[in-house]
Amino acid sequence: MRRILKAAILGSTGLVGIEYVRMLSQHPYIKPAYLAGKGSVGKPYGEVVRWQTIGQVPKEVADMEVKPTDPKLMDDVDIVFSPLPQGAAGPIEEQFAKEGFPVISNSPDHRFDPDVPMLIPELNSHTISLIDEQRKKRDWKGFIVTTPLCTAQGAAIPLAPIFMNFKMTGAYITTIQSLSGAGYPGIPSLDVVDNILPLGDKYDAKTIKEITRILSEVKRNVNDPPLEEVALDATTHRIATVHGHYEVSYVTFKEDVNVEKIRETLENFRGEPQDLKLPTAPEKPIIVRNEDTRPQVYFDRWAGDPPGMSVVVGRLKQISNRTIRMVSLIHNTIRGAAGGGILTAELLIAKGYIE
Amino acid sequence: MRRILKAAILGSTGLVGIEYVRMLSQHPYIKPAYLAGKGSVGKPYGEVVRWQTIGQVPKEVADMEVKPTDPKLMDDVDIVFSPLPQGAAGPIEEQFAKEGFPVISNSPDHRFDPDVPMLIPELNSHTISLIDEQRKKRDWKGFIVTTPLCTAQGAAIPLAPIFMNFKMTGAYITTIQSLSGAGYPGIPSLDVVDNILPLGDKYDAKTIKEITRILSEVKRNVNDPPLEEVALDATTHRIATVHGHYEVSYVTFKEDVNVEKIRETLENFRGEPQDLKLPTAPEKPIIVRNEDTRPQVYFDRWAGDPPGMSVVVGRLKQISNRTIRMVSLIHNTIRGAAGGGILTAELLIAKGYIE
Amino acid sequence: MRRILKAAILGSTGLVGIEYVRMLSQHPYIKPAYLAGKGSVGKPYGEVVRWQTIGQVPKEVADMEVKPTDPKLMDDVDIVFSPLPQGAAGPIEEQFAKEGFPVISNSPDHRFDPDVPMLIPELNSHTISLIDEQRKKRDWKGFIVTTPLCTAQGAAIPLAPIFMNFKMTGAYITTIQSLSGAGYPGIPSLDVVDNILPLGDKYDAKTIKEITRILSEVKRNVNDPPLEEVALDATTHRIATVHGHYEVSYVTFKEDVNVEKIRETLENFRGEPQDLKLPTAPEKPIIVRNEDTRPQVYFDRWAGDPPGMSVVVGRLKQISNRTIRMVSLIHNTIRGAAGGGILTAELLIAKGYIE
Amino acid sequence: MRRILKAAILGSTGLVGIEYVRMLSQHPYIKPAYLAGKGSVGKPYGEVVRWQTIGQVPKEVADMEVKPTDPKLMDDVDIVFSPLPQGAAGPIEEQFAKEGFPVISNSPDHRFDPDVPMLIPELNSHTISLIDEQRKKRDWKGFIVTTPLCTAQGAAIPLAPIFMNFKMTGAYITTIQSLSGAGYPGIPSLDVVDNILPLGDKYDAKTIKEITRILSEVKRNVNDPPLEEVALDATTHRIATVHGHYEVSYVTFKEDVNVEKIRETLENFRGEPQDLKLPTAPEKPIIVRNEDTRPQVYFDRWAGDPPGMSVVVGRLKQISNRTIRMVSLIHNTIRGAAGGGILTAELLIAKGYIE
Repeated sequence: MRRILKAAILGSTGLVGIEYVRMLSQHPYIKPAYLAGKGSVGKPYGEVVRWQTIGQVPKEVADMEVKPTDPKLMDDVDIVFSPLPQGAAGPIEEQFAKEGFPVISNSPDHRFDPDVPMLIPELNSHTISLIDEQRKKRDWKGFIVTTPLCTAQGAAIPLAPIFMNFKMTGAYITTIQSLSGAGYPGIPSLDVVDNILPLGDKYDAKTIKEITRILSEVKRNVNDPPLEEVALDATTHRIATVHGHYEVSYVTFKEDVNVEKIRETLENFRGEPQDLKLPTAPEKPIIVRNEDTRPQVYFDRWAGDPPGMSVVVGRLKQISNRTIRMVSLIHNTIRGAAGGGILTAELLIAKGYIE
Repeated sequence: MRRILKAAILGSTGLVGIEYVRMLSQHPYIKPAYLAGKGSVGKPYGEVVRWQTIGQVPKEVADMEVKPTDPKLMDDVDIVFSPLPQGAAGPIEEQFAKEGFPVISNSPDHRFDPDVPMLIPELNSHTISLIDEQRKKRDWKGFIVTTPLCTAQGAAIPLAPIFMNFKMTGAYITTIQSLSGAGYPGIPSLDVVDNILPLGDKYDAKTIKEITRILSEVKRNVNDPPLEEVALDATTHRIATVHGHYEVSYVTFKEDVNVEKIRETLENFRGEPQDLKLPTAPEKPIIVRNEDTRPQVYFDRWAGDPPGMSVVVGRLKQISNRTIRMVSLIHNTIRGAAGGGILTAELLIAKGYIE
Repeated sequence: MRRILKAAILGSTGLVGIEYVRMLSQHPYIKPAYLAGKGSVGKPYGEVVRWQTIGQVPKEVADMEVKPTDPKLMDDVDIVFSPLPQGAAGPIEEQFAKEGFPVISNSPDHRFDPDVPMLIPELNSHTISLIDEQRKKRDWKGFIVTTPLCTAQGAAIPLAPIFMNFKMTGAYITTIQSLSGAGYPGIPSLDVVDNILPLGDKYDAKTIKEITRILSEVKRNVNDPPLEEVALDATTHRIATVHGHYEVSYVTFKEDVNVEKIRETLENFRGEPQDLKLPTAPEKPIIVRNEDTRPQVYFDRWAGDPPGMSVVVGRLKQISNRTIRMVSLIHNTIRGAAGGGILTAELLIAKGYIE
Repeated sequence: MRRILKAAILGSTGLVGIEYVRMLSQHPYIKPAYLAGKGSVGKPYGEVVRWQTIGQVPKEVADMEVKPTDPKLMDDVDIVFSPLPQGAAGPIEEQFAKEGFPVISNSPDHRFDPDVPMLIPELNSHTISLIDEQRKKRDWKGFIVTTPLCTAQGAAIPLAPIFMNFKMTGAYITTIQSLSGAGYPGIPSLDVVDNILPLGDKYDAKTIKEITRILSEVKRNVNDPPLEEVALDATTHRIATVHGHYEVSYVTFKEDVNVEKIRETLENFRGEPQDLKLPTAPEKPIIVRNEDTRPQVYFDRWAGDPPGMSVVVGRLKQISNRTIRMVSLIHNTIRGAAGGGILTAELLIAKGYIE
């Protein structure tokens, strides 16, 4: 039996932090051991946390004291999960890595460092070898691994098997995202009551940039057209849903495609986490629904086992010989953040990067 | 000075009915004279109506009695506006037309009769000549004219000038629609609280079918490719907004296009209602916004003068040489229904079809 | 070890039905064995159910076929749970009771039959002896037991210990209720988006009537004033929350009271289900929160163990010598319906009414 | 004919600022002449304002430049309206008063200065004589007048005529308030989606304090019991409505009352603004609805003429001989802020305090 590893969760009272706490409270070999916070240091976790997820704060963590974000206090910690906000995350994560900790970050700050992996374990697990380069170059005992933006994952997870197997020339994505993706306090209520909030050019651009990097790292069975020639775009919005990013993609191809072949490809898609039977790997990373009104945010965001780890795809449709439509739904704080982080940790453990 | 025309509004207590009543209460030469209803006959309009629009019930109609939907009682009525629901509308509208009334319908029942115009006055005003054919064939003194589905109008109004002037090959539309488009009681609350409701294949299909008919009737400056070769698709949804349909379109072309040329085309677009200075014609049928977070439903649905008569377009973007993105917003019960119906009436009056 | 009892759930795809299915899937000795439905007979439960609760449909029931509501087909069923809608429930429940089934009903149809218990197990468990009278009088082998309206329970559970121990003269209750209390399709979305829906005189009256009956059946330590002299009122509303009824009560007394004594009374309140350690009995039927912004619907509706079985009370405040304020929150489909029904079943089993 | 007065609106792009701009754009003798702002100085008002109200930005102000909040630049301004936020408002308003401007403030900063009137023109117009004292004491040419908190006004406007004419002993108020009352960005969306946000002890307390001051200044026809003996309480909340504060009051009396007498008193209530026929005075400050599901936020917040200036009361009910229930609805940014401010200005003009 595997040794129980102790995890520190930075930003443990935030919207992604709580999913780490909830999921690790049920994890077979990673335990929430150190709950770091900022405004609430010294207070019992259960008293200060805003538990914006299912159920109630697990009993085993409710009385744990929130502690400072300080590597010196974490002697017996084996892994550090960092869902810290942009800007704050960067230097703190470097400090932890320097001190010898494996850091799994959901923050954007190091996502585009050339020696830092940005992992969706089913898609680009081979990029974890960047860690060796990173340690060498930076002379660190620890390391940083990141996960991509939730919005990018929601589109990229189903687009990747398509891109790997068909001559995809473009993908035009319209996102309808939930509030939890922006953290708390996040989006002002008057922006989303009786309204749709466009997220603007910058958010569109970073979504496209991250999807592009993910696609650039998958192993393709077709090599045509090259990724540089693929037109990708995203039009991003938020509305008044609590969790779950919903994304409509129109996908174009260089040759005729059959949407049924694509459906099959998506249904059969598996990755290394499934082969390794990692505990947080859902049996199917992608669940395809055939009803014409699914996926729905309220009903499908918890899909998979563990809940929220499968992306649900639906409304697959042949638009023209070389164009198809696809809708995907991702639980942004689980598969798109904390769950993705835990799956990454499991992969790193399996590969010997965390002992 | 023009004679004041008397209008009957069928379904006058419904969500489109109230906009007819509100707009006609301020109209220079069409007055709400006969308010027809179903469940509330005999009661004062102001007491029974669910006024799901701006302000309060206009004083001049608040005390009017709701009356039966019976042509025999409408001796002095000059025009009949019919926003009746699908199924109910068809036979009633025929009866009124047979009795000699000009009927302007927002219902789908006669939209695809080959001798019935489906009018967006800025786009296909020449199709009103179908009325002559209709009267002859059906031996009617009156006639039926329809307006298209609000969702179809929201995309078609800005797509039409593009299709007329550029070699468009496809348009992939994702709609995020408001609740009022489904009437009352309409959408159950549990379908849209913390959820996005996909409208399914049938609704997608009728949206595409109506956009196609509209485009088939505009006067093009380019004739390539033919409409049959243009790939159109719509993925339709409703969320918890009260009024305003928001639509994201990715548009493809046979040749390179410049999005700035398209912006200019949209900004300069005018139609016959503008030439005729019809009172319900907004100065600009399409208002183009350049900010990257506009249009927004709450802030832009009342655009134009009269309010709600302009479609607001934004987030125009060059995706690739032959692909652009565009977002449009339409006030579904005004431009997409009652306002469109009144503008149609004004056109018919100007052309001598209503005296 | 106790024999596993087989339960039939009528209306199993409804909003209360799904909570029965979810809770019984985890129950130590009552199993969901027969899922009755109406529109979806013959189809797999997991495919047709609208799972408007946490998680996904439990695997053990997902493939079960929805069956007709027919006692003849339920040979091996031990208990029948009936969350059927008003009107439909009455005759069906009678038929099942006549056929020998113990029927636990969440419907209003038999709540005021003088020989039918209306149970909140912590408050009036002694009234189950009405069953003997009922069987005798009606010559039934089975019987009907009901649970009160969720809204009434939300106020009555915390009011009861106050009424039992202090000379209460009045309670003025304002409710802000969730949508699931009205079933599906239930409340039209346009009634609750950017709105508060008053439920009107009838709903107010039935809430008061049911609270009155509950209070009339508790065992009091003070007998002054008599219940007939206690002024009770409720002003009821629904808003766009999915689950959880929130109720503000102003409570008046004949003598001076100390709100801290009331807090203590509420905190220490226990009932027979706690003494009997019934599996669905929460340790504390009432959880008192001291923060001035709790309870909150999103965060407290799942309180207790099993989740949703505790009523959360807060904002206790001394208004004047003889007036206090109290806020309470109940999970309407759990404690207020399915959970209350299961707890009732456990009590009946413990008492030998179900074998 | 009256001279046109020029108004400066501080915080003109805020949620109350926009109602000042909208209402004054239609005012017979006060014009929006100077639009002050903070972040957007130098830009056209129509471009930077978040127009969270009906219609679109009026043409006459859309191109006006937003200017600094500096009395030196306001030579020709006759009145200053100040809906500035708490804390910021205080010193700025003093500066303007010192410079000779009449300042009408919706901010709390000076509401409890003993020489500053806190006006609801229908209720305590005689307190404007405090201005004389204020000017003398502070040696100011200008002066400050305030309006009360919107929440306090929503209850106090209908409670005042009751308190003036009946032996009221208590009022227990539960508020369900809208988001615009908290300004922008204001309430985080995650606090109100699928939730009710309690506003806590401080907000409750200030509501009670302001209602108390208002009642202390009305002219009573009964003097028993003294106000000190009247128990007032408020339990305050916000939910996801945009505009409109909805308040449920249980009101108790020392002697038997008849709710029909109270209904009559409310219906007949008029104040000095009605006698003076001030342009912003609604014909009826209180509109009583008799339907058991009114008022409703969406449908009644715009009641009165000008729209939003009447408080709508409903669900009047006799609870016991000495207790009644009442529901009231106020448009918080109009009657509760900008509209109340403009009515106050009109009163001050009529009384010669502004020339």
